[in-house]
Amino acid sequence: MSAINRLLSLARRPDGRLQASDFRFLEQRVPDLAAGEVLVRNTWLSIDPSIRIRLQARTPSGYMPPFEIGEPLVGLALGVVQESRHEDFAPGQTVSHMYGYRDYAVVRPGGSTIGGYGALAKVTENGFPLQWQLGPLGSSGLTAYAGLLAVANLQPSDTVWISAAAGAVGSIAAQLAKLRGAIVSGSAGSPAKVDYLRTTLGLDGAFDYHDGPVGDLLAAAAPEGIDLYFDSVGSDHLIAAIDQMRPGGRIAMCGALAEYDNHPATPMPSNLFQLVSKEITIKGFRAGSYSHLMQAMQDEVGTYLRDDSMEYSELVLHSLDKAPTALVAMVRGDNIGKTLCALEN
Amino acid sequence: MSAINRLLSLARRPDGRLQASDFRFLEQRVPDLAAGEVLVRNTWLSIDPSIRIRLQARTPSGYMPPFEIGEPLVGLALGVVQESRHEDFAPGQTVSHMYGYRDYAVVRPGGSTIGGYGALAKVTENGFPLQWQLGPLGSSGLTAYAGLLAVANLQPSDTVWISAAAGAVGSIAAQLAKLRGAIVSGSAGSPAKVDYLRTTLGLDGAFDYHDGPVGDLLAAAAPEGIDLYFDSVGSDHLIAAIDQMRPGGRIAMCGALAEYDNHPATPMPSNLFQLVSKEITIKGFRAGSYSHLMQAMQDEVGTYLRDDSMEYSELVLHSLDKAPTALVAMVRGDNIGKTLCALEN
Repeated sequence: MSAINRLLSLARRPDGRLQASDFRFLEQRVPDLAAGEVLVRNTWLSIDPSIRIRLQARTPSGYMPPFEIGEPLVGLALGVVQESRHEDFAPGQTVSHMYGYRDYAVVRPGGSTIGGYGALAKVTENGFPLQWQLGPLGSSGLTAYAGLLAVANLQPSDTVWISAAAGAVGSIAAQLAKLRGAIVSGSAGSPAKVDYLRTTLGLDGAFDYHDGPVGDLLAAAAPEGIDLYFDSVGSDHLIAAIDQMRPGGRIAMCGALAEYDNHPATPMPSNLFQLVSKEITIKGFRAGSYSHLMQAMQDEVGTYLRDDSMEYSELVLHSLDKAPTALVAMVRGDNIGKTLCALEN
Repeated sequence: MSAINRLLSLARRPDGRLQASDFRFLEQRVPDLAAGEVLVRNTWLSIDPSIRIRLQARTPSGYMPPFEIGEPLVGLALGVVQESRHEDFAPGQTVSHMYGYRDYAVVRPGGSTIGGYGALAKVTENGFPLQWQLGPLGSSGLTAYAGLLAVANLQPSDTVWISAAAGAVGSIAAQLAKLRGAIVSGSAGSPAKVDYLRTTLGLDGAFDYHDGPVGDLLAAAAPEGIDLYFDSVGSDHLIAAIDQMRPGGRIAMCGALAEYDNHPATPMPSNLFQLVSKEITIKGFRAGSYSHLMQAMQDEVGTYLRDDSMEYSELVLHSLDKAPTALVAMVRGDNIGKTLCALEN
């Protein structure tokens, strides 16, 4: 095959806020397959916040290395097998893998993954929109499910706070916690999102973190304190959660959005002694370590989606050309729910 | 009974470093007992770091309230029953309770406790020095044992760092971890203590945290990283532990010594995203919540003490008059091991 492949790469390190011009496309001829390789034409790209970390010149210890300038980006994607030199995969099959941000991906089954995800895998039709296997029935759903249940041991009696609750993961976590019986407050970054949390998701409390000190807003939303905090923001949100935590509280930490796009001097917790005084647990996690829960998550979330007890929103941008715009919009938190790019199908 | 009772109280809030003149003695007539009460003559006082927190004008959320100026201090103590108006206690019995820092204590069985400890309880002779039931066979031992085993799930394959490793709790934790098969480094605040860690306790690594940035010292002591950190210091020690932690690492946090006596501006973790990238758990705890492990701890630690595979040091100051001096010495970290006051017996 000798088609031209476009691959999105980093043009320069973002200086403060991410811009579309921080990226540029490379063009490469699609290479011939070596034995054991599979050629996939990408159809859906998952635009995830965690990619922001790898655009920096340094990444935190334990994390994947920074993208080099000019290096093609990677990310979770769905696609269709075009050619195969591996016996387990045949042309026409729908697959998931980690080589998004490009038209075509050459994938070696059993190769590297992103944080435990992204090995080449067949995707089975399940009656829902295909792209939901990147969202509520895929990595977003698993992050919410594992964080609440396996990491933070959600109980029906809990009062829960979900940050970034209008986002891809947060919106599922907030609804899952409510459907499991908890009292749930959510926070987000715009009046429209807060309205969504209150009206569409029916949360017990909701606030815009721009409206004052997060600790005060949280105390007003959950005046009796919280038992569980689902953290994807870090920084002032984490401080507020510790201050408002009841004895024995649990914090599931899956990200630190506040730290991805505006450094260097975000405020950091100065109240960690409360971890002792209130016997609080903070547990960082990556969903890839909980892939054994994927089936249970899909069963439960699938049931909620099917009977309309769970709502799911997504922003779809069409064509690979829009991937830089999608990245900027996702990092800025412009939209409710998941951000995706649909490639020409 | 109409003896005079001396009770140590707070004379003024400490301004920076604690001084003996921050305390003064009250004299009160020992009251007549009401029905259900027991009069105890104190014989041993446990001088514990956590009392420092309650000398401040404010205590962290979830913690016991500050001592008022002029309010008698409390703390774990051993004593002998002098008079009893409770059927379960008789004169001559040795007991433990929470009303230390005074000659005589009037105690109501079943009354309030300190963080789960300190209900009036009979103490049984066990072949060891009596005061060890305030130390390695009491609260210090339980803090070390519960923190390592129940909170942080110590494995023989772990590389462990114990802060304040020459202290009452740390010295037991360090030895327990080694006896359980782990590779153990310890840190402390003087050359004499580091020599004790290296020579007497035989730890695999030891450093004085004054000798440079803690992160660099820890990296030199445990160049392959650590799996478990036993934290009683907080602050720069906690930051260093997170930086050096291997994936899946656990932090058991029982205190924050660095924050008790020199505020307000200790550096605080700015590396918490590593909790996500390395899937680290931080769990704050109070030993009082693990009193169900007391017997198992006493069995194991008692065996080690009996066969001399565990060493235990203590500084004993004689007479209640010395309690202010003992408090200052303990907070300054002057001595190796536990600090106690022995009252006239």
